[in-house]
Amino acid sequence: MKNYTICVLAGDGIGPEIMAQGIAVLRAAADKCGFGLTLTEGLIGGAAIDATGGPLPAETVRLCKQADAVMLGAVGGPKWDNIEKAIRPERGLLGIRKELGLFANLRPATIFPELKAACLLRPDIVEGGIDIMIVRELTGDVYFGEPKGEKTVDGERAGYNTMIYRESEIRRIARVAFEAARKRGRKVCSVDKANVLDVSQLWREIVIDEHKNYPDVELSHMYVDNAAMQLVRWPAQFDVIVTGNLFGDILSDEAAVITGSIGMLPSASLGAQNPGLYEPIHGSAPDIAGQDKANPLATILSVAMLLRHSFDQEQGAAMIEKAVRTVLQQGYRTGDIMQQGAQGLKLVGCREMGKLVAANL
Amino acid sequence: MKNYTICVLAGDGIGPEIMAQGIAVLRAAADKCGFGLTLTEGLIGGAAIDATGGPLPAETVRLCKQADAVMLGAVGGPKWDNIEKAIRPERGLLGIRKELGLFANLRPATIFPELKAACLLRPDIVEGGIDIMIVRELTGDVYFGEPKGEKTVDGERAGYNTMIYRESEIRRIARVAFEAARKRGRKVCSVDKANVLDVSQLWREIVIDEHKNYPDVELSHMYVDNAAMQLVRWPAQFDVIVTGNLFGDILSDEAAVITGSIGMLPSASLGAQNPGLYEPIHGSAPDIAGQDKANPLATILSVAMLLRHSFDQEQGAAMIEKAVRTVLQQGYRTGDIMQQGAQGLKLVGCREMGKLVAANL
Ligand SMILES: CC(C)[C@H](C(=O)O)[C@@H](O)C(=O)O
Ligand SMILES: CC(C)[C@H](C(=O)O)[C@@H](O)C(=O)O
Repeated sequence: MKNYTICVLAGDGIGPEIMAQGIAVLRAAADKCGFGLTLTEGLIGGAAIDATGGPLPAETVRLCKQADAVMLGAVGGPKWDNIEKAIRPERGLLGIRKELGLFANLRPATIFPELKAACLLRPDIVEGGIDIMIVRELTGDVYFGEPKGEKTVDGERAGYNTMIYRESEIRRIARVAFEAARKRGRKVCSVDKANVLDVSQLWREIVIDEHKNYPDVELSHMYVDNAAMQLVRWPAQFDVIVTGNLFGDILSDEAAVITGSIGMLPSASLGAQNPGLYEPIHGSAPDIAGQDKANPLATILSVAMLLRHSFDQEQGAAMIEKAVRTVLQQGYRTGDIMQQGAQGLKLVGCREMGKLVAANL
Repeated sequence: MKNYTICVLAGDGIGPEIMAQGIAVLRAAADKCGFGLTLTEGLIGGAAIDATGGPLPAETVRLCKQADAVMLGAVGGPKWDNIEKAIRPERGLLGIRKELGLFANLRPATIFPELKAACLLRPDIVEGGIDIMIVRELTGDVYFGEPKGEKTVDGERAGYNTMIYRESEIRRIARVAFEAARKRGRKVCSVDKANVLDVSQLWREIVIDEHKNYPDVELSHMYVDNAAMQLVRWPAQFDVIVTGNLFGDILSDEAAVITGSIGMLPSASLGAQNPGLYEPIHGSAPDIAGQDKANPLATILSVAMLLRHSFDQEQGAAMIEKAVRTVLQQGYRTGDIMQQGAQGLKLVGCREMGKLVAANL
């Protein structure tokens, strides 16, 4: 029997409780699919700051590198908001991405038919549904570019960062996008600001060049300001969107919120050799932490992405996704996706929701 | 009688036709308010490229600097899409902003009650309307930061730009935002990415410091990814948003499209001494150029902003805004704001719409 090692980084706020349900579903799926699991646990974010003084202990990095995949809950909370930037919880997130070389962030933004009413757009705009895969570059751009810092210019203070992409960085993320499109609608829209930025000009040039290897995929280009508009205006026009770290941060959150189901959306961060990292896109929701109110479905769907992308267990992934759909169809809802006034819906807690999905595998 | 000189940059596509209506309304307002007008005309964008080889002739800059205010139509179109970046139409826009030191871009995003149905969000989300003033810094940031270009890193090509703000640049745009808030809802939300970017940390620090001079205004901070979400989730929470050039580019377009009335939204770009520049936020719409189909209302409302901000003619500004509302209430619509299936609406062309507004002053 095949055995996989998963490093679990529960993190802060609702992290531990959603992760417990994600792991329960993972265990159930492993039983069904016939593979073994070894779980290790690492500290990250605020929990790591409290225990070790920093958001990403070396031990956590070591455990992650030894694993076949990493599951992350959520990091951060008001408790650590006033800590100096260099050791804040988010640094743990940025650090683990960089340490594991997780350059490709896959962020689906989809509407579940059962949750259509939650979509924030006018119903006629989303008649055709929303099913976008945002491929965000995750280890480059102005997030990590050097030089950066503060300096004196003409006798006054100036803060600065460097927005930079190398050809190989652009090429490999473009490839991920084209490959993803092949498994979907065969359309890639590359988002940049090539009418203003030099870095975007190289981005566009390389994406166009790499596209030569994917003649079966349709490629288009859009400026980031226009993309921010088109996501609201006509989201169904998009299949795969590929973009840099900063634009991807903004657009993927915009696309996610539009669906109205942020508590439902998973993500995968993949590298070349190291294990992939899987996490819900929502935050640590400190206001409801520990109250068994959180929605574990984004974490559970992240488990499905893990099975698909890291273990090539498409069957297990599809099984989990189907169970989530079934539970929604049966009318079970956590508070965040509860529809006021709708008939036949049953409010459940985090634990109960996890159990229901596991039972439906 | 007071006399003002206006430099008119009609630009490309629908630029000339919307500008003709804007100027007609400006003339009518001048008559009513009792001031004189001298108009000069300059080339910009594609029109300038065709005539002179570059998008911003020195003569245009000279004319603008001599004027009391500048009106701009729109620039760009497919004809100039494949020209090398350094002399493309947009360069004219970036160039005139920089030449005139127009560091403050005021972009209102509002819903006109008559056009509420056009809003792209679910009706229950925008029950309270949308009335946001985005104050975008316009002459700094990664748009103009040095160094920039292409270089070789580890033997491969890299494209790069510098995201940079000096203390004085942050201070003066913060002041514009606080002053604007005093005339509105007394709330400023500053948008940055201070959890990742050094330039944003200085931004936040200086905005907080400058806020000490405006204790009557409420200040909050938001990360740009969250702001992109909150604009869709709950736009009524915002009064004034202040942000940098790049984030402002993205968020102001997002906020504008949400209203569903992009053809209605004006903008003002202001500097310290030089004349302000006023323009509709929409593009040059080459597909309908010359067909008398364009909506001139954004240009006409830009004239109102001009009277308010450059000439301190609040009465004239309010008169124009009221006339636009009246015409909408009377049911007149250009194609872009025509509501399918609604009763009592009358489709009109660009010229007719301009005439109607002038007649209602
Ligand atoms: C917390 C923050 C550093 C992070 C980012 O900007 O990448 C987050 O917004 C995300 O998208 O995962
Ligand atoms: C055309 C482009 C250079 C410009 C910008 O990015 O500033 C435009 O998008 C705008 O917002 O006025």
